Amino acid sequence: MEELYLRRSVRAYLDKPVEREKLIDVIKAGTCAPSAMNNNERQFTAIVNKDVKAQLCKAVWDTLDKSFRDRILGRTGGAPSFFYDAPVLIIVSTAPNSHCPAADCAVALENMFLKATELGLATCWINQLVSTCDSPAIREVLGKAGVPASHKVYGACALGYSDTPSKKITEKENKIVICD
Amino acid sequence: MEELYLRRSVRAYLDKPVEREKLIDVIKAGTCAPSAMNNNERQFTAIVNKDVKAQLCKAVWDTLDKSFRDRILGRTGGAPSFFYDAPVLIIVSTAPNSHCPAADCAVALENMFLKATELGLATCWINQLVSTCDSPAIREVLGKAGVPASHKVYGACALGYSDTPSKKITEKENKIVICD
Repeated sequence: MEELYLRRSVRAYLDKPVEREKLIDVIKAGTCAPSAMNNNERQFTAIVNKDVKAQLCKAVWDTLDKSFRDRILGRTGGAPSFFYDAPVLIIVSTAPNSHCPAADCAVALENMFLKATELGLATCWINQLVSTCDSPAIREVLGKAGVPASHKVYGACALGYSDTPSKKITEKENKIVICD
Repeated sequence: MEELYLRRSVRAYLDKPVEREKLIDVIKAGTCAPSAMNNNERQFTAIVNKDVKAQLCKAVWDTLDKSFRDRILGRTGGAPSFFYDAPVLIIVSTAPNSHCPAADCAVALENMFLKATELGLATCWINQLVSTCDSPAIREVLGKAGVPASHKVYGACALGYSDTPSKKITEKENKIVICD
């Protein structure tokens, strides 16, 4: 399972669409992740539509504090693409009163990252919508995309092709303790 | 990557130890999971010691409300093994003030579930310690095992051998929406 060691966060994507079959395979892998009490209440909303993706990006930008926006503008000279111009953004949402909503959605994202890696696709974990999904402007676009109003967004996956092969890493510096 | 479809929650384990090399491989796969801002602050604490595992199980039992314990006793006739008598329990913890602690630990757990599946091992996502880790009796055992007092437990992985081969499932009934 080399994918565990090859998955990297990719922040630049080719202008090349994701094949529909691959997109569905990625999402189905996400549905196979465990969920607390096996509730399977997650929804996977894949935004392929460029206009909707642009509207969502603009709504995120408009939601930020002016001081924060100014800092970004000072650094980059323009409003950033929060989804790195990836051809697809897969939003994972669930009811906030489910047992472990953040964990349930996170494991679904990880499965999608790994499946995408297997299929030669690249991904990035997108977090901006977690804290902003209840802002009216963002909620409006989420509704247009099909995210239920009763759901909170717990993460999203930017999906597309990268032109850079990823470097294999077999361990990161997290602390490991064995209690024998 | 068949493991995505073969990973199941297993709640009965053989009385057979997990080889040290496999245990380390499982944990290292966990460390390769993404984390918010790539902070990598997670700790993986593997409890192999039977006494410590039993003490932790007893501490969880003692922490439950009497009425809840009575309901369990009425159903099972005895205190349950919260970790399903698995030979290893891998606790994933991090500082609660990190950016996305629950999500960071959940993706590490999923990587471990998948790597274990590849190695012929079985797993179960254990959640009891998430809400109980700050009870003094449980904290004492966690400290003995090596979990830092400043960390909150965000999940654990029961790990061992199952005598039942798992059934492949390629999709679960989570809702999928494509916004074209």
